[in-house]
Amino acid sequence: MQVARIHGAGDLRLHDEPVPTPGPGEALVRVTAVGVCGSDVHWWQEGRIGDDRIEVPLVLGHECAGVIESGERRGQRVAIDPAQTCGRCEFCEQGQVNLCAALRFAGHAPQDGALRSYVAWPERCLVALPASLSEADGAMLEPLGVALYSVDLGEVKPGTTVGVFGCGTIGLSVIQLARAAGAARVFATDLPAVAHRLEAARRFGATAFAAEGGREVEGILRATGGRGVDVAFDAAGDPEAVEAAVAAAKPGGRAILIGIPCEDRTTFTASTARRKDLAIRVVHRMKHTYPRTIALVESGRVDVRSQVTHHFPLAEVGRAFAVAQRREGIKVVIDC
Amino acid sequence: MQVARIHGAGDLRLHDEPVPTPGPGEALVRVTAVGVCGSDVHWWQEGRIGDDRIEVPLVLGHECAGVIESGERRGQRVAIDPAQTCGRCEFCEQGQVNLCAALRFAGHAPQDGALRSYVAWPERCLVALPASLSEADGAMLEPLGVALYSVDLGEVKPGTTVGVFGCGTIGLSVIQLARAAGAARVFATDLPAVAHRLEAARRFGATAFAAEGGREVEGILRATGGRGVDVAFDAAGDPEAVEAAVAAAKPGGRAILIGIPCEDRTTFTASTARRKDLAIRVVHRMKHTYPRTIALVESGRVDVRSQVTHHFPLAEVGRAFAVAQRREGIKVVIDC
Amino acid sequence: MQVARIHGAGDLRLHDEPVPTPGPGEALVRVTAVGVCGSDVHWWQEGRIGDDRIEVPLVLGHECAGVIESGERRGQRVAIDPAQTCGRCEFCEQGQVNLCAALRFAGHAPQDGALRSYVAWPERCLVALPASLSEADGAMLEPLGVALYSVDLGEVKPGTTVGVFGCGTIGLSVIQLARAAGAARVFATDLPAVAHRLEAARRFGATAFAAEGGREVEGILRATGGRGVDVAFDAAGDPEAVEAAVAAAKPGGRAILIGIPCEDRTTFTASTARRKDLAIRVVHRMKHTYPRTIALVESGRVDVRSQVTHHFPLAEVGRAFAVAQRREGIKVVIDC
Amino acid sequence: MQVARIHGAGDLRLHDEPVPTPGPGEALVRVTAVGVCGSDVHWWQEGRIGDDRIEVPLVLGHECAGVIESGERRGQRVAIDPAQTCGRCEFCEQGQVNLCAALRFAGHAPQDGALRSYVAWPERCLVALPASLSEADGAMLEPLGVALYSVDLGEVKPGTTVGVFGCGTIGLSVIQLARAAGAARVFATDLPAVAHRLEAARRFGATAFAAEGGREVEGILRATGGRGVDVAFDAAGDPEAVEAAVAAAKPGGRAILIGIPCEDRTTFTASTARRKDLAIRVVHRMKHTYPRTIALVESGRVDVRSQVTHHFPLAEVGRAFAVAQRREGIKVVIDC
Repeated sequence: MQVARIHGAGDLRLHDEPVPTPGPGEALVRVTAVGVCGSDVHWWQEGRIGDDRIEVPLVLGHECAGVIESGERRGQRVAIDPAQTCGRCEFCEQGQVNLCAALRFAGHAPQDGALRSYVAWPERCLVALPASLSEADGAMLEPLGVALYSVDLGEVKPGTTVGVFGCGTIGLSVIQLARAAGAARVFATDLPAVAHRLEAARRFGATAFAAEGGREVEGILRATGGRGVDVAFDAAGDPEAVEAAVAAAKPGGRAILIGIPCEDRTTFTASTARRKDLAIRVVHRMKHTYPRTIALVESGRVDVRSQVTHHFPLAEVGRAFAVAQRREGIKVVIDC
Repeated sequence: MQVARIHGAGDLRLHDEPVPTPGPGEALVRVTAVGVCGSDVHWWQEGRIGDDRIEVPLVLGHECAGVIESGERRGQRVAIDPAQTCGRCEFCEQGQVNLCAALRFAGHAPQDGALRSYVAWPERCLVALPASLSEADGAMLEPLGVALYSVDLGEVKPGTTVGVFGCGTIGLSVIQLARAAGAARVFATDLPAVAHRLEAARRFGATAFAAEGGREVEGILRATGGRGVDVAFDAAGDPEAVEAAVAAAKPGGRAILIGIPCEDRTTFTASTARRKDLAIRVVHRMKHTYPRTIALVESGRVDVRSQVTHHFPLAEVGRAFAVAQRREGIKVVIDC
Repeated sequence: MQVARIHGAGDLRLHDEPVPTPGPGEALVRVTAVGVCGSDVHWWQEGRIGDDRIEVPLVLGHECAGVIESGERRGQRVAIDPAQTCGRCEFCEQGQVNLCAALRFAGHAPQDGALRSYVAWPERCLVALPASLSEADGAMLEPLGVALYSVDLGEVKPGTTVGVFGCGTIGLSVIQLARAAGAARVFATDLPAVAHRLEAARRFGATAFAAEGGREVEGILRATGGRGVDVAFDAAGDPEAVEAAVAAAKPGGRAILIGIPCEDRTTFTASTARRKDLAIRVVHRMKHTYPRTIALVESGRVDVRSQVTHHFPLAEVGRAFAVAQRREGIKVVIDC
Repeated sequence: MQVARIHGAGDLRLHDEPVPTPGPGEALVRVTAVGVCGSDVHWWQEGRIGDDRIEVPLVLGHECAGVIESGERRGQRVAIDPAQTCGRCEFCEQGQVNLCAALRFAGHAPQDGALRSYVAWPERCLVALPASLSEADGAMLEPLGVALYSVDLGEVKPGTTVGVFGCGTIGLSVIQLARAAGAARVFATDLPAVAHRLEAARRFGATAFAAEGGREVEGILRATGGRGVDVAFDAAGDPEAVEAAVAAAKPGGRAILIGIPCEDRTTFTASTARRKDLAIRVVHRMKHTYPRTIALVESGRVDVRSQVTHHFPLAEVGRAFAVAQRREGIKVVIDC
């Protein structure tokens, strides 16, 4: 079968490898859709995320869906939950499964991910898709879950005012979920270079501002009578987005940091945050979201499909990553 | 001017009284719309609410709106916040204004309410209505605020499953607000005798069950795979509704008790609640909701207008109360 | 080996049965200390707790400790966590292990408990005791855990004012833990007939009032300037204690209901709770408390030892239950 | 009367000015004790805090107590709450008084503070001291309040593990309050140059580590089996302390940032915080703490007196600031 492996920064290669054999509790899954995430682009370009580095060639891919090819559930269309938790550590016992001390996460070194034709994966991590969800929709449930966990942490309620800094897949999902949670107004920003993302943000109900030298923050403050937003989501990770989120949050507000910065530093003006008694939450993936994200997509409350702007076959994975890196569309999906 | 006073249980009389003179910080308001609340019916029928009794003839009316007739804001259309808080007690200082130790609440003995042509009321309690809200809409902001505070306490989020026991104004508002907060499914119940209320619940997106001998709870449990709802709202107050709310809540769920029971006892099966580690919240009015409820009505997220099924002039206040008591429609509004 | 079984209401018999054989993942434990809980007395006297009934003769005993007699940990002194959770249901996954849908709880029908010489129990439920804790101390960790979970739910902080209604083991543990959590003042009540329990409450730092016709509530209100306590714990379960807890809580306060009432009804004055916007929590056992309770006992912050007023051999289990039922002391421990 | 004014960075002068006349609602207070806070040293050395700058010569001093010299309360010994809130803005109404939009805070430009013989201050901000508290104790209630608000935000409970980075007045108060809230273990760090502060931390029950090149974090991780602390308090503000707090927090933990950095940037390693799903709270002063801090000092749970290592008369305010800046002792109090 075909497998895409990262051998180091910028070094992505296709290999021919044997189909894996499922171990106990596992099923064989034919992978049909894999989304390319911003963190995948980090792995590909830098060969690392924070302190985690590629030691042996790594298969990326953690936004994924497919069809079960073995066992009793053979033929079932499933989203693949990339997180294999141990179920026994302190964090698993307390339900904080995203903090599992022995986590194996697909596509995060050293655990190979789904950018290949077949994967053997624990059955309990295979979430059945209803008929109305395509497999590409199924692959989108992972970033949607991160966005949902973030919106939960943001405590968005009917009437809440929201700012979203960065309009990639996570940002656009946050916009939609914030609206679904009753947000009165949603402001969104991204760089002028990705006007199509600002346009998508508007289509999902946000008031969008191009991020240029802080003018987007001025726009948000003006639109809120100088008060700022109840919750500001950084969905970009670059220092400007974090600074803007802190600057646009109201006193007593919350800043939810989802983005992954290139420099591995989070930094903001101390006195701005302090004067606001700001609550900041750094987000690590998600927990317990699959049933809820499926219900939200199925009921039409959230539209993931229109976010998928590019499809590539696995053989063109290099082109796919290049498109994702240049942020030409929104979500790039690889059909394995 | 015309004034409606309760002299004792069942004794409602119309009087002719002088127009009041606003004190310092107050404005004169021409009252134009007053909703009849279930608690008004309690005062009218029983002459009391809990331990609070009518000592001197009481003007009811706390769901109210009108037009300012004095001062700089003359001509402004306003919702009248019925709660005059002291601003100085421990509770006010901590923002728990619904618990103000020196509260004067319109239409709650001994503070006269709005069932009269004019009222003098503190300017800070007069909330300007946007053009798109009628004064009857403005009167509905008070019960809508109670519902919003309740939905906040219920922590309704995208994907939450909700049960609403009682489909009067509060219940129907909870249904709409729960939907606005992203509830995946809302189940609603009321007595078969008020089929029009069940019909309204369906119109607002709920799955409605007639409450008959616990069959509504069976229906909810069946529809949730035996699990029950994340949050159960009692919006009726009668013992059957409280018991049903406790029975329909999931383990680890929440029961929000908004209703006012006739017998002044709250009672439920201890072991049912205990096995669920149930969080119960008894709701007392609301706090800080006007800006949010106005935004929700203005944006069309919540429809209060279709809940107003009856209008009466102040001269027919007796008929209005009788209709409310027989629960013939949903909300009865008196146009003063 | 000797085993004590309840055959029905009031029918407790000693049997001679074979020593159990540990299954996979289990160890054989020689039981050395079993506390008698109020719920055990319910099972013994009424043959039921809520809807759960004795169908086949039941071995009681869920406050227990012993010595491991098999496997690698042989010789280790352990507290026995009575809760065998499934680890797979929705509730376990979310860390709400006390709500496990497939829970097997020692001494709760149909799961046999520890009132016998030996028990085979999952190794993961056997919590090693430090040298400074006796096995009777270890048996006390279960009720102490319930008290700790309750104090957590009560959100006791430095400066909080607390009321405890019922001074059995749970109540006295709540008093100590509330003090350890920084409570400024703790008020405690129990019936005049159990003056020794009021005396123990005083020894642990509470201001104690005999519960007589509501005079205890008057005392607490007087001592708090009419305000009431921030958190009121019902640790008795009888209707008077619940009513007193609701009456003594401050506006905006919390009532934590831990007790198990005989009549299986929880009931209180609706208007009293409503005027206070009261948050009520019904407590079901506990979760994740063993490491914390061990640390608290080991450091001397909590004294469980002085609460054990009676010891009986297993052969005198009938006498032990009778003493517990008459509430002659505080905790009765059976040395198996 | 004598007044100490900051005219610009490093420019502190003593003036002779007329005694102020109390306005409506105000009382004249003879100032007797003023603590020197780290933020005072920032004002003195840099002439600013964040964006707030000295425009006209500023009287510092917000940790203060004195004796009322006018009106009905004449002769009463009081702590002076430095925060004059408006009582009307959105934040005051919701009880978030530390975020008041029209706040006047003593000693924060442009509001003059208490480093003078007399101050006219609103009566409602004058908190009566019990006999057992000296006026210097009263001055310490302000930093103790900040520490208490921080410990509340840290959700310290019985059994919690705590790290405190920086052992000045705030850090030492956090240590004591964390212990009072039941913390199982408290780790504290500060620079080797202030060994007397590490010694004070030990006296208050902490395990203290000298902060040298991250070895203090290693020490804390080793002492917690690699897990880290539940809550990490930055009470220093320098970048190393923030980084250490983030590094020492456990996955799922909290970092509470109280310190004020010189550079006005808060910065930490992004991936460290992200992997922990870290909740961060930036602290802005406090709210609603006076009754609780008085109770804690009065009951002996917290010792503020031993933290006051230096006293100076107002005439020697320059020397006092120099001692505070060199961190020679712990708290410097000026007796006006």
